[in-house]
Amino acid sequence: MDSPTLSPANTRVLLVGLGLIGGSYAQALAAQGFAVDAFDPDPDALAFARDHHWIVRAATTPSPAIARDATLVVFALYPDALLDWIRAYQHLLAPGTLLTDTTGVKTPVVAPVQALLRPDLEFIAAHPMAGREKAGIRNADASVFQGANYIVVPSPANTPRAIALCRQLGVLLGFRRISELSPEAHDAMVAYVSQLTHCIAVALMDCQDVPDLAAYTGDSFRDITRIADINDRLWPSLFLANRTALLRSIDLFADTFARLRAAVEAADVPALRALMQLSTARRRAFTS
Amino acid sequence: MDSPTLSPANTRVLLVGLGLIGGSYAQALAAQGFAVDAFDPDPDALAFARDHHWIVRAATTPSPAIARDATLVVFALYPDALLDWIRAYQHLLAPGTLLTDTTGVKTPVVAPVQALLRPDLEFIAAHPMAGREKAGIRNADASVFQGANYIVVPSPANTPRAIALCRQLGVLLGFRRISELSPEAHDAMVAYVSQLTHCIAVALMDCQDVPDLAAYTGDSFRDITRIADINDRLWPSLFLANRTALLRSIDLFADTFARLRAAVEAADVPALRALMQLSTARRRAFTS
Repeated sequence: MDSPTLSPANTRVLLVGLGLIGGSYAQALAAQGFAVDAFDPDPDALAFARDHHWIVRAATTPSPAIARDATLVVFALYPDALLDWIRAYQHLLAPGTLLTDTTGVKTPVVAPVQALLRPDLEFIAAHPMAGREKAGIRNADASVFQGANYIVVPSPANTPRAIALCRQLGVLLGFRRISELSPEAHDAMVAYVSQLTHCIAVALMDCQDVPDLAAYTGDSFRDITRIADINDRLWPSLFLANRTALLRSIDLFADTFARLRAAVEAADVPALRALMQLSTARRRAFTS
Repeated sequence: MDSPTLSPANTRVLLVGLGLIGGSYAQALAAQGFAVDAFDPDPDALAFARDHHWIVRAATTPSPAIARDATLVVFALYPDALLDWIRAYQHLLAPGTLLTDTTGVKTPVVAPVQALLRPDLEFIAAHPMAGREKAGIRNADASVFQGANYIVVPSPANTPRAIALCRQLGVLLGFRRISELSPEAHDAMVAYVSQLTHCIAVALMDCQDVPDLAAYTGDSFRDITRIADINDRLWPSLFLANRTALLRSIDLFADTFARLRAAVEAADVPALRALMQLSTARRRAFTS
């Protein structure tokens, strides 16, 4: 078998959801020559994308004519909305259409979607590990994908062809590193590298009320709290969709943080140095 | 009284300590036309600074001839070393010399230094809120001061003239925002915006051992752990020199983090949204 490829000649993309991520996908794929259509309830988002020549056809509610022409559908929706869309509208899609997503949690999505999907459609999950502290298509910027990570999240229900096409989509979007994780491994990873970091940033920003804070901060505080500017409609649903893994990550962090606190209280310099030497070695290993 | 000024015509600078920060000071002040001399036990550091024309005269042990000519002495030493230096060498300095520092904690430094200082010398503390995750003069880079914050830390023992000169030093070095805090207020602030953030970064990096971590991280994890690459000889001494304030900051953070954890466990979306709305509002206020 030749390896399958996505090309503008054989692929018409339908983006469902034109927010920050959906808009950035449309921008990146249009720049690669793909014809992209889009559904979004917000007519302004559609007009913005059309004005920028990121999309061709658009509709505020799923249009049978547009849905029928899609060969690749990308869902850039909040987690709850994806299942609802499949249930309500999958009958509009042509046989053989490939579906993928951008959702930040996978165990609540992959098996349920695959369970209710028509047998002549295939859903392959993916997670672009890039974003911005702003929402909406007006903040879309495909350049955030450059150098970033893209995780393909196959399940046993997926075909090698779909996995290969989904990996290629990551390359076309500009991602540097494409990897694969199972839904469970993905969610455990995301609990640590993304959700826990957002919890920390929020708690750090909330724990003290300091007038004129900006006059006293260094880069470290600014960098660590950048993501404390957070979409409060999206993130609670991501946290709760991954609650068990997130609580495990929170507790592992809290345990280590408590050990560090105990070393400060006991003035235990060797313990502090050991904690710092470990963090330095790990941070350097993953930078290189 | 005219406001006093530091200029190359009236000021000869002596840097005591030519590491990352001392080297960056030398670079910045030489670029402004100041004659800078330096003491550092490491002959390579001195040779590096001389090769780059950042310093004029240098000695590995305090030289009476160099010390006598200084009108402004800047200490860029580990906290413990500053007091020892004053005790051993202040007799080398000319009457009227102004002394300042770069130390990250102030209550253990300001009163003790001022208590043992000759009455014809004046010490005015300052803290440049800038740095890098690397040590040593070979990583010195005065451009890190551009746009950064500089905190002057006067005590009741300081004269308006010394405070004004120290503020001007911050401007000459390239800092954007110059502010003043008492030693106690400075240390409480630094416990929060600097020391706590370093504790968090270290604990976050240490709490899980993930193979191939770099393939799965987004910007948030990379930014939040940047400072987990940390100088383990410097930071334990900074933490312990400010232990009471740091423990207070650690506990305030841990309390808020525990509240956030409880909201995740209880699936309390309104509580999560309220925490996120507060962090978003605070983060935006201090960005603008």
